[in-house]
Amino acid sequence: MFVYADNAATTRMNKAAMEAMGPYLDGFYGNPSSQHAAGRDAAKALAQARAKMAKNLGCEPREILFTSGGSEADNLAVFSAAALGEKSGKKHIVSTAFEHPAILRSLDRLRAKGFSVTLLPVPENGVISGQQVEEAIRPDTCLVSVMYANHEIGTIQPISEIGRICREKGVLFHTDAVQAAGHLPICVKDQQIGMLSLSAHKFHGPKGVGALYVQKGIQLEPMITGGGQERGLRAGTENVPGVVSMAAAFDFACAHREENMKKMTSLRDKTIDGLKNIPYSILNGDPVCRLPGNVNVCFEGVEAEALLFLLDQAGICASSGSACMAGSLEPSHVLLAIGRTPDQARSALRLSFGEENTEEQVDFIIETTAKAVSSLRGVKSSVPRL
Amino acid sequence: MFVYADNAATTRMNKAAMEAMGPYLDGFYGNPSSQHAAGRDAAKALAQARAKMAKNLGCEPREILFTSGGSEADNLAVFSAAALGEKSGKKHIVSTAFEHPAILRSLDRLRAKGFSVTLLPVPENGVISGQQVEEAIRPDTCLVSVMYANHEIGTIQPISEIGRICREKGVLFHTDAVQAAGHLPICVKDQQIGMLSLSAHKFHGPKGVGALYVQKGIQLEPMITGGGQERGLRAGTENVPGVVSMAAAFDFACAHREENMKKMTSLRDKTIDGLKNIPYSILNGDPVCRLPGNVNVCFEGVEAEALLFLLDQAGICASSGSACMAGSLEPSHVLLAIGRTPDQARSALRLSFGEENTEEQVDFIIETTAKAVSSLRGVKSSVPRL
Repeated sequence: MFVYADNAATTRMNKAAMEAMGPYLDGFYGNPSSQHAAGRDAAKALAQARAKMAKNLGCEPREILFTSGGSEADNLAVFSAAALGEKSGKKHIVSTAFEHPAILRSLDRLRAKGFSVTLLPVPENGVISGQQVEEAIRPDTCLVSVMYANHEIGTIQPISEIGRICREKGVLFHTDAVQAAGHLPICVKDQQIGMLSLSAHKFHGPKGVGALYVQKGIQLEPMITGGGQERGLRAGTENVPGVVSMAAAFDFACAHREENMKKMTSLRDKTIDGLKNIPYSILNGDPVCRLPGNVNVCFEGVEAEALLFLLDQAGICASSGSACMAGSLEPSHVLLAIGRTPDQARSALRLSFGEENTEEQVDFIIETTAKAVSSLRGVKSSVPRL
Repeated sequence: MFVYADNAATTRMNKAAMEAMGPYLDGFYGNPSSQHAAGRDAAKALAQARAKMAKNLGCEPREILFTSGGSEADNLAVFSAAALGEKSGKKHIVSTAFEHPAILRSLDRLRAKGFSVTLLPVPENGVISGQQVEEAIRPDTCLVSVMYANHEIGTIQPISEIGRICREKGVLFHTDAVQAAGHLPICVKDQQIGMLSLSAHKFHGPKGVGALYVQKGIQLEPMITGGGQERGLRAGTENVPGVVSMAAAFDFACAHREENMKKMTSLRDKTIDGLKNIPYSILNGDPVCRLPGNVNVCFEGVEAEALLFLLDQAGICASSGSACMAGSLEPSHVLLAIGRTPDQARSALRLSFGEENTEEQVDFIIETTAKAVSSLRGVKSSVPRL
C-alpha cells in the first residue's frame, strides 16, 4: 500500500488546480504586461486570480501580491516591516521560538542589522497566548509575526486575539499562514491581520507560487526590483499558470473546507488514538487546538530516521518534522521549544493528512508504526527512557 | 491571421517543456527535501534537471542555482557581487546604459548604499566594445555586468572578450543572458563568465522559473532565507515541475539552436528588408550582430501605441519594447541610449520571432505594418520629420 501522509511538506495538485493551469501553459501564454490580445488574456487571468484570492481571504484584490512561494512572502513581509520600523525609529520585533525558518532566518539577518527580537517561549501545548504577545510589545515594536498554525505540530495560534491586541497597540501584525491557508478559516479584515503569507503547494496547488496579503496603506520594501509588475513591488514576469492554478486550488479548498476539516479531524484523531497505545509515546502539541490533518508523536528511545526508513519501506511517506530541515542532524527547534529533550525531539514522527487519505490507510499506518517502533526498540541495547 | 511576434516578451511552452512538466504536476509531487520515496523521486528529478542545465551551459551542476525567474537571478547576482565587493572595500560597478531594468533598478539601490556605478554609453549600433569595459574598470571595481543580448534591439555584446578582460583584471563578470539563452551559444567556462542569469519562459519553457549560474568559489548573498534548499542559498520548496520543464526546454533549444537560428535569421532579415521600404523607417541596432529573431524599427512621425493597436486589430501581437515597461509613457531607455530622440523612441516597433513563425506571417506583418504606418501618417496633421 502506498500512503502519502506528508501533506505538510507538499501536496498533490488537485483536479481544480490542474484544470485551471492547463490552458495557461499552452493556449494563453501571453505576458500580462503586453498590450496585445495575448497579453490582455493573460492580464485578465491574473486579475481574476487576484480577485479570487481576495474573496477567499476577505480583502481587496489590490491587497494581494503574488510571490514565488511562502518563503519569499515571509521574507518580504519581515523585511518590509523592518524597513518601515527603521524609518520611525522602531527596531524591535516580537515573534515566537517555533516559527518557520523563513521567519527565523529573516529575523537573524535583522538582528545583525541592529534590530532587537523577542522570540516568545512556547508553552508545552504549543499554543502561544495573546497575553504573551501583549506583554512583549514595547513602544519601539514595529512588527509582531506569529504563525497561524505550526508546521510541525500543527497547533493553532489565537490569531484573531493577537490581531486585536496589535491593532490596539498600533503594531503591524504579520502571520505566516502557510500551513493554515485552505485548512482554517481566514478573514484578514475580521482577524485584523496586516500581512499574511501563503503557499499554493500546501493546499493542493502548484509549487513555485505563493502570495502575500498586504493591507492597503502598508508600504512594502521590494526584494526583487526591475519591471513594474505587481505595482512595482515584485519584479519579474508573473507566473500566470501558477497564479491561476493557485487561485483555483484555494477557491476549492475554501469551498470544501468544512467537510475536509471534518474528514481529516476524524483521520487525525483515529491516528492519535492508535499511536497513543504504543508504549512511551507522547503526543506533541495540543490534542484539539491543532490542524485537522496533523499528528506529531514522539516514541521515546526510537530514532525517527530509522522509523521513517521502515515506514518508507512499507510504502508510507511521513516525516520527522519540516521538510526544509530534513536530513539535518539538529533536533527540531519546534519540539525543543515546547520542552522536548533533544533525544525526544529526534524520536518524533509527523503525519499530515490530505483529502486523499482514507481510514484504511490510517489503520495501516498505526499497525506499521507499532511494529516498527517495537522492532527498533528491540534492537536497541538500552530500554526506552521514561 | 493570428501572428505572435512578441517572443522577447514571453514564448509559448513547447512540446518538450510540456511533456517534461506533466508527470511532476501530478504523479511525482513529492518535496525534494523529504526523505521518503516521493521525496527521492522529486530530488532525483531536480538533480537531473540541474545536470541538464549544466551540460548545456558548460559548467558543473552545483554551479546552477534555481530561481523564480530572470529578475530574481539578476537581483541576486548584482547584490551578491556588491556584498563581496563591500567586504574587500571595492564599491564600483561597471554596467551599460541599456541593461534590463532588473539590473538597472538593482544598481539604483546600490547607488543609494554608497556604490559608484559606471553605465557605459552605448554606440549607435547597440554593441558595447571590450575596450569600453576595459577602460571603465578601476582598482575598486567589484563587478562588470553586461547583458549578452539586448531585450529591445537584440544586439549581441562581445561577451567572450569582456569575459577575458574581466578575468585578466580579476573582476567578477556577470551577464544577463535572459534574451540570449537558448538562442545563442553559451559556454560559461570558455567565455569566462562568473555569473549568468536566464529565464525559462524566454526559450519556450514555463513562466516563474529561471536560473543563475554561479562559478564555484563565488559566495552568494542569499535574498530569500529560510530552509536549506539550493545549498542554503535560496530558501523555499523547489518548483520541481517548473525546473524539470525549464531543463527540457533548454535542452531542446540548445539541440536545435543552429537550425532555429538559421530559420529565424531568415525571417528577421526578410522582415527588415520589407520594413525598410516603408518611408522614414530606421532599423534600431546592428543589422547583423543581433538576435536571430529580433527586429526593431522606428517609423518617424508614428506613435507606436497607435501602430500596435492597428496591428493587434489585425491579429498581430508585437510590442514597442520591453513588456516590463509596456504602458509606460517614458520613451525606451534602450533607444535613448543608442541616440534616438524621445519622439523617435516612441515610434519603435519590436517584432521578435520564435520557432512557430512562418514566411507567410512575415509577409502579412510587412503588408499590415506598411498600411498601418501609412494610415497613421495620413491622419496626422504634420508630415513625418526627417
